[in-house]
Amino acid sequence: MQYKKLNKEQLIAEQSQLLAEFAALKEQGLKLDMTRGKPSAEQVSISNDILTDVGADGVYSEDGTDTRNYGGPLGIIEARRLMGELMGVKAEQVIIGGGASLNLMFDVFVRAWIHGVLPGQTPWGQLEKVKFLCPAPGYDRHFAICEYFGIEMITVPLNEDGPDMDMVEELVKTDAAIKGMWCVPQYSNPDGYTYSDAVVKRLAAMETAASDFRIFFDNAYCVHHLYEDEQARLINLYDACAAAGHADRCYIFASMAKITFGGAGISAMAMSPTNFEHQARLLGKQIICYDKVNQLRHTRFFADKAAVEAHMMKHAASLRPKFAKVEEVLAESFEQGDILKWTKPLGGYFVSVYTMEGCAKRIVELCKEAGVALTKAGATYPYGIDPQDHHIRIAPSFPPVAELDAAMRVFACAVKLASIEKLLAE
Amino acid sequence: MQYKKLNKEQLIAEQSQLLAEFAALKEQGLKLDMTRGKPSAEQVSISNDILTDVGADGVYSEDGTDTRNYGGPLGIIEARRLMGELMGVKAEQVIIGGGASLNLMFDVFVRAWIHGVLPGQTPWGQLEKVKFLCPAPGYDRHFAICEYFGIEMITVPLNEDGPDMDMVEELVKTDAAIKGMWCVPQYSNPDGYTYSDAVVKRLAAMETAASDFRIFFDNAYCVHHLYEDEQARLINLYDACAAAGHADRCYIFASMAKITFGGAGISAMAMSPTNFEHQARLLGKQIICYDKVNQLRHTRFFADKAAVEAHMMKHAASLRPKFAKVEEVLAESFEQGDILKWTKPLGGYFVSVYTMEGCAKRIVELCKEAGVALTKAGATYPYGIDPQDHHIRIAPSFPPVAELDAAMRVFACAVKLASIEKLLAE
Repeated sequence: MQYKKLNKEQLIAEQSQLLAEFAALKEQGLKLDMTRGKPSAEQVSISNDILTDVGADGVYSEDGTDTRNYGGPLGIIEARRLMGELMGVKAEQVIIGGGASLNLMFDVFVRAWIHGVLPGQTPWGQLEKVKFLCPAPGYDRHFAICEYFGIEMITVPLNEDGPDMDMVEELVKTDAAIKGMWCVPQYSNPDGYTYSDAVVKRLAAMETAASDFRIFFDNAYCVHHLYEDEQARLINLYDACAAAGHADRCYIFASMAKITFGGAGISAMAMSPTNFEHQARLLGKQIICYDKVNQLRHTRFFADKAAVEAHMMKHAASLRPKFAKVEEVLAESFEQGDILKWTKPLGGYFVSVYTMEGCAKRIVELCKEAGVALTKAGATYPYGIDPQDHHIRIAPSFPPVAELDAAMRVFACAVKLASIEKLLAE
Repeated sequence: MQYKKLNKEQLIAEQSQLLAEFAALKEQGLKLDMTRGKPSAEQVSISNDILTDVGADGVYSEDGTDTRNYGGPLGIIEARRLMGELMGVKAEQVIIGGGASLNLMFDVFVRAWIHGVLPGQTPWGQLEKVKFLCPAPGYDRHFAICEYFGIEMITVPLNEDGPDMDMVEELVKTDAAIKGMWCVPQYSNPDGYTYSDAVVKRLAAMETAASDFRIFFDNAYCVHHLYEDEQARLINLYDACAAAGHADRCYIFASMAKITFGGAGISAMAMSPTNFEHQARLLGKQIICYDKVNQLRHTRFFADKAAVEAHMMKHAASLRPKFAKVEEVLAESFEQGDILKWTKPLGGYFVSVYTMEGCAKRIVELCKEAGVALTKAGATYPYGIDPQDHHIRIAPSFPPVAELDAAMRVFACAVKLASIEKLLAE
């Protein structure tokens, strides 16, 4: 139904029907949480063998290191090689972290803040003002790190092929206070978009007023395809930067959190040799080592990238019916309509929906009334403010399909109700 | 032999005999590393069962949390309870970290630097000057954190009952730039001293010019006794601070690194409810969760503090012959002499030796020539400078007893040689 073509009377008639429907949905007494991109119990169980694959008889890494004991802040060599393969860099350029790649990113900010990004560079904490470019919608926890340090965030629109590069190039060329940029280059959170070759190359090559400009490539979904036959292709981020003569420009992050266990994975960061030396030296001041036994568990479980990719198809098999359910309910309710658009990602953990302007908060509120918790409207924008109040992030991974069906029907009804409210108020 | 009573001729005679002895020791071609307080392979093997005590059939914590999945940045409740018991505080006051308590301490500095120690307090990073009191000899990695942040370190002598409290009280009362203090209150690194009740109470009660003064109690050796019958007793640090009306003054840290695995333990910090709220809120910006499966492994392995204490007696049984060997060689070589004093700790990981002034560096150098690597002389003092060049840290835990015997004989010979060099040069 094309709501925008209805007159007031027709809208009111539709509204009263929807209100009855919504009342019935509320009576189900749902209690569903779709706030975060969290793997389901079925998904984490796929990796159960990892729990016990290092026993007392096999605690040594390939170079003879006793993983149980102190030492080795950079990680065991086989873990650095495996994560390097996922990120397209050599093992020597990789530092392995704990379960949370977010913490690796945070720590890079701490180092930049106190020591600068390289020896001789001014610590960001000594500058009057530091700004970051934030393609949006994006990942709320990235933006929260900027807020932590009082970094001013500049929103850049995220298009289907990546950030609006005309805008990015113009900004970084003219403003030396812009020290960096967040990027989720493959299956972006939440749109599911992947940066085109041209965008990656422009990011690598662009002229920046700040000599210490850094791109934080959070390649969180580097192997998180939904389909075997249709997959995003991202060119090598580090190679692109190096080819453009800006090898030091990028930090690349990856994580096993959504490959093995969200609560017990390993993470990694990759960078140029020059960046590596600086990061490794400062890392050595804060930690003796991350959990090397868990690194060994992961390399025992995965021989190489091909093994990870095969494993990810098991996740995909678990996730596909959920993404299909979201698509089914949205298509059924809105394909013929004029009030909602949404993304159809080939991977990652989210679906983005774009409502009529000024409706997103109200929809999230209505869903909450009916027992369906969604990510806060606006959370995917810097400072939690979506200027058009039109974006909602759907995270289909955690609930079973039946619950997801119930939640999506609540959501669809809420979208319609909020849209009519808006149209009636105009 | 009392070297200081010998005349020049006698010294030269003794020297030539020692040089021959030293040449013979060098010919052994030793390659021994005694630089760090690292558990031996035998010690880490004591905890091997922990590796596989969480399998696919038991991944849930007592409140039903799936430890494999995201969430719970503060740690699972049973781990908070266990570590709280070790630290003498309630579970609700405890945050569980990764393997390295050093990283927890570092992160508290980051938070103080960027946000202040509590809401409304000036971030330390915005102050002209921040100073810390550093009882010395102390732990080099503590001092390295101060250097990381450019914090000025003030050395305070560490006596057998704790830091020189007259000096501490005078300094903190008059200088508002002194924002904190490092303490290893039980079996201090490296002397093995334990703070007396009076010292703890004075630390808790003393008047500080800085309202945001914080004591970092690194209780790294809280259950690390060497003997069953003779053990240090430390009064409750948090209770002492709370009783003195300064509950917010202290952060307490503990770690399983030297209880289970140096490379795969868990760590913890405890603090007042007010401090807790601030730390927990800021922690939530940097991490989604630490490794909860590993927390569960530890609580499966240890039902309570009593279980930890029983376990520690196995470590003690492995460590006692090593401490005995150090004592044996030192007593044999120096008990009747006038050139060396050393500590006889009841727990912890180190023996401190105090040489004649101006000899420590030379001794470490001589040992290196003979293939025995010791902790760098001076490392246990702020900025790596021992003003008297007289302290050396002996770390007996890692090498087998036979190697330790060889290393200590090299050490004894080196002490004598360096002392005679010094006496001849006077």
